[in-house]
Amino acid sequence: MESLSKNKQKLIRSLQQKKYRNEHQLFVVEGEKMVRELIQNNPQKIHELFALSSWIANVPSSIPSQTVSEKELEQISELKTPNKVLALVKFLEFTISTPKFTIVLEDIQDPGNLGTIIRLADWFGASNIVCSDKTVNIYNTKVIQATMGSIFRIPVEYTHLETYLSQQTRPIYGAVLGGENVYKTKLPAQAVLVMGNEGNGISDSLLSFLQNKIEIPRFGQAESLNVSMATSILLSEFFRIQ
Amino acid sequence: MESLSKNKQKLIRSLQQKKYRNEHQLFVVEGEKMVRELIQNNPQKIHELFALSSWIANVPSSIPSQTVSEKELEQISELKTPNKVLALVKFLEFTISTPKFTIVLEDIQDPGNLGTIIRLADWFGASNIVCSDKTVNIYNTKVIQATMGSIFRIPVEYTHLETYLSQQTRPIYGAVLGGENVYKTKLPAQAVLVMGNEGNGISDSLLSFLQNKIEIPRFGQAESLNVSMATSILLSEFFRIQ
Repeated sequence: MESLSKNKQKLIRSLQQKKYRNEHQLFVVEGEKMVRELIQNNPQKIHELFALSSWIANVPSSIPSQTVSEKELEQISELKTPNKVLALVKFLEFTISTPKFTIVLEDIQDPGNLGTIIRLADWFGASNIVCSDKTVNIYNTKVIQATMGSIFRIPVEYTHLETYLSQQTRPIYGAVLGGENVYKTKLPAQAVLVMGNEGNGISDSLLSFLQNKIEIPRFGQAESLNVSMATSILLSEFFRIQ
Repeated sequence: MESLSKNKQKLIRSLQQKKYRNEHQLFVVEGEKMVRELIQNNPQKIHELFALSSWIANVPSSIPSQTVSEKELEQISELKTPNKVLALVKFLEFTISTPKFTIVLEDIQDPGNLGTIIRLADWFGASNIVCSDKTVNIYNTKVIQATMGSIFRIPVEYTHLETYLSQQTRPIYGAVLGGENVYKTKLPAQAVLVMGNEGNGISDSLLSFLQNKIEIPRFGQAESLNVSMATSILLSEFFRIQ
């Protein structure tokens, strides 16, 4: 078995940083489940794949791949418990036709939250996600793990939100404390839903774009809901009526 | 400033393990927000408190406390970025009157999921949570952090679920793939809701106790929802009608 070159190790580890991901237009996907899905649905997106000898037989010969030892996998993995296979994947590109339902995220910081929201969007069938430039990067390993594969199905873009929102013709909703009780609000099938930063909520500069402020009523005592829980409940409200 | 004794360091670090938490009937709460809430609402539950000199002025003299250096706090903290204060807290005890809405958790493994579900229960005003003995321990630091203080308001007990469920007179619901569309199900205010393990769902031995199998319909393509997302949506459905 050919051992993994120092240069390749260095390249893979450098992709933990956004700067090098952008330079190489590559990101890392780890774990059997997600890589298996990639091989099945998007084999052409795989730049190169590194797997334990026990796993390499699953890889079609058309995909550039290399067998690695457990120790080598540990050295290139960002996971605490590396999981048999790691793939270098080309940056994703989507063509979006006219979006029906868009989730707008302002400065979401926690990778688990972004990943979870991508998975929720994929569960409910939202068209796409639009993030502020300060939102955590989509190719962050923790984001990718939390999406459980939904990253390959939901288009996510980063842009200047004021500009984006000013161009929308669909009604714009936002989760705001003191907003209208979402359970008593008639919600449209086509809409833009804005969710704010974990600590600060939606910023003043975006608030003025909201035509409809909604909130999830609290029946108990917790001070707040996490943004991904709030998103799950609001998406459920928007999509349950369809 | 008196330095933290080796014995005390050892005691605090030992509480990262369930065995020693049970032996001392103590657990660790970290971070300004949660400790401030404790001081306000449950000062008598604090066994001892350790804070940076900049923070110790916030602590009433009635609470046993000791000033620690940043380095000492780092040594006793389980957080990557220790947060000014750490408290040793006595095990919680609740008296539950007749519960109206109970969440039953079977073998939930991820501490973030359990913590999030406790926070959700507190938001929606569920009465209590009943866990299988194999569910992750409530005094695990990651559980406590994820509850954001709701751990002090929601009674959580561990028990044999078959026995517990067999004693219930309220209707028992469970989240099951292929169950009835939850959006089309009339849900009662008093109920027991069973949520299954992250990977396996509800076990066969519990399935027979469910009078009502419900599911969240999928409008998109994601294979599954995380258990805490599913719980947030189902609690929203149960409580929105009240």
